[in-house]
Amino acid sequence: MKLSPEYLRNLATVLIERRGAAAAAARLQADVLIEAELRGLPSHGLQRLPLLLSRLDKGLADVRTSGTGTWQRLGFLSIDGERGLGPVVIMNAMEMLRGALTETGLAIAAIRNANHIGMLAYYAEAAARDGLIGMILSTSEALVHPFGGTKAMLGTNPIAIGIPAGDHPFVLDLATSVVSMGKINNHALRGIPIPSGWAVDREGRPTTDPHAAKSGAIAPFGDAKGYGLGLAIELLVSALAGSDLAPDVHGTLDETHPANKGDILILIDPSAGTGSSKALAAYLDCLRLSHPLDPSHPVAIPGDGARARRAAAMEAGIELPQSLFEHLTALEAA
Amino acid sequence: MKLSPEYLRNLATVLIERRGAAAAAARLQADVLIEAELRGLPSHGLQRLPLLLSRLDKGLADVRTSGTGTWQRLGFLSIDGERGLGPVVIMNAMEMLRGALTETGLAIAAIRNANHIGMLAYYAEAAARDGLIGMILSTSEALVHPFGGTKAMLGTNPIAIGIPAGDHPFVLDLATSVVSMGKINNHALRGIPIPSGWAVDREGRPTTDPHAAKSGAIAPFGDAKGYGLGLAIELLVSALAGSDLAPDVHGTLDETHPANKGDILILIDPSAGTGSSKALAAYLDCLRLSHPLDPSHPVAIPGDGARARRAAAMEAGIELPQSLFEHLTALEAA
Repeated sequence: MKLSPEYLRNLATVLIERRGAAAAAARLQADVLIEAELRGLPSHGLQRLPLLLSRLDKGLADVRTSGTGTWQRLGFLSIDGERGLGPVVIMNAMEMLRGALTETGLAIAAIRNANHIGMLAYYAEAAARDGLIGMILSTSEALVHPFGGTKAMLGTNPIAIGIPAGDHPFVLDLATSVVSMGKINNHALRGIPIPSGWAVDREGRPTTDPHAAKSGAIAPFGDAKGYGLGLAIELLVSALAGSDLAPDVHGTLDETHPANKGDILILIDPSAGTGSSKALAAYLDCLRLSHPLDPSHPVAIPGDGARARRAAAMEAGIELPQSLFEHLTALEAA
Repeated sequence: MKLSPEYLRNLATVLIERRGAAAAAARLQADVLIEAELRGLPSHGLQRLPLLLSRLDKGLADVRTSGTGTWQRLGFLSIDGERGLGPVVIMNAMEMLRGALTETGLAIAAIRNANHIGMLAYYAEAAARDGLIGMILSTSEALVHPFGGTKAMLGTNPIAIGIPAGDHPFVLDLATSVVSMGKINNHALRGIPIPSGWAVDREGRPTTDPHAAKSGAIAPFGDAKGYGLGLAIELLVSALAGSDLAPDVHGTLDETHPANKGDILILIDPSAGTGSSKALAAYLDCLRLSHPLDPSHPVAIPGDGARARRAAAMEAGIELPQSLFEHLTALEAA
């Protein structure tokens, strides 16, 4: 069923406010979920809300805090998220970093003990719309096997990069796994096999059975290189945030553990540099117009598809599974 | 033929010193080439020396400068490389950044107008051995086509990340192309086809002919994700360093143009964070011992292979093509 973004945003906001959240915090957390829906990323959308509400009810997530930041150096902010809502803690970090940039030109926040921050593109785009380069790195539960290995030892370890580039910022947001666990779950629900190369089963054997993959491990993207990048993110985040490494991480997918993964936010002020946002935009247009392999599929820039899907969904509404809608309205009526 | 690293290092040093370089600068440039040879990366080794010497003779590279750095902010250094030797300019930048870290915790150098910096792992490892996290990004001539495109529009845009992790630093160094142009050249020399998926020809048709690939374009690694990462590096470097974008870049492969690509160096002091280098090392050991897909190939950590090859070559010597050795000794005798 199709529902209006504003209706769903209000529904989510009310549900979070009822757990004691201030209006602004509830609305920010709701907005991150809705923006994921609008961009066609339901794995980071409203399907995560019931789990989050349950975590709030159990004290694993705390609506009252924005985290406590300590400036270790002029450009280095350590943040204890204090079990706060992920979006609230990281947007608070972004605000604090922004204040340092005039002096330092770039700044970093290393965040531990915050709940799931959701779709990283949200923060990369927020930074870029503000004229800043934003880089976000995050870790997760062990879901990904090393290249040449079979055991889930790494998080999906996404990275997002936002760069001002004329009218539309460049926004890259990718997990370092070849596919998300959400997509494998979706294949399982629909009862269709997954492509070979996506995953191994619990015994480490390559599988095309999505159910077997769910108890196994997902492959890194891009073979050895993607594995290397995911591993670098695993190490970098833990080194700076003091967060746990994947095999010990919990709390983004369950309702029993505090979230002990880590998040890194780096902001760079490009006005300290000597490049030109207009030159970047012109180059991106050349790329879009460059010769495609398949004439019916023009060359795309990361973020173009999400922007188009968002515009369409703002008109047509957000497609929500009936069961999820009923679950959310039952929670509202409770 | 096998030759001793020390002999080759001295040979390269002498050839550069003869063009007016101070001993330390000549030795550093030589060292970067030799370290690439030792790690089994001849594409970034001595085969680049004749071109570099020619560029020095023609005034496209200048041995006398280390570049001029301007602190735009406390953590943001803009560097005009002034046509200096790449390794000399970037190691000078690293020294300057290091001085800022006590105050800022992290710092960035955006470098334009320096010659080819060679193997990025050299600098990532230098930072990590010094207890710092080092990240290096670099751009190049247009050699890579966008995902879904056929025209060379992006550089090979490598990224290296060095992270202290117990006894051996973690060192990742990867180009965002699926393969280097050096490897395609090598297939052409040996007259063997390249795997499908590596490249397209001048007309944009997928090819397994290495000669056709040389005038075409290389694929990005990891499909859309690797393309996105390479593009982010293209934009980030140009935005901060004011360097040209790939279609306009020259000067790392020719002896007719100044080098107008850009290089970015970011240093972060992990002692400002709350993580543990020992915990990272223990985790990396768990990864190495985790179940391999093929029992005869244990799971590897990026940098392990390079370290093993280096140790072996320090004993057995560097394998150099006879023709390259003769070329270098002829230059020495000239």
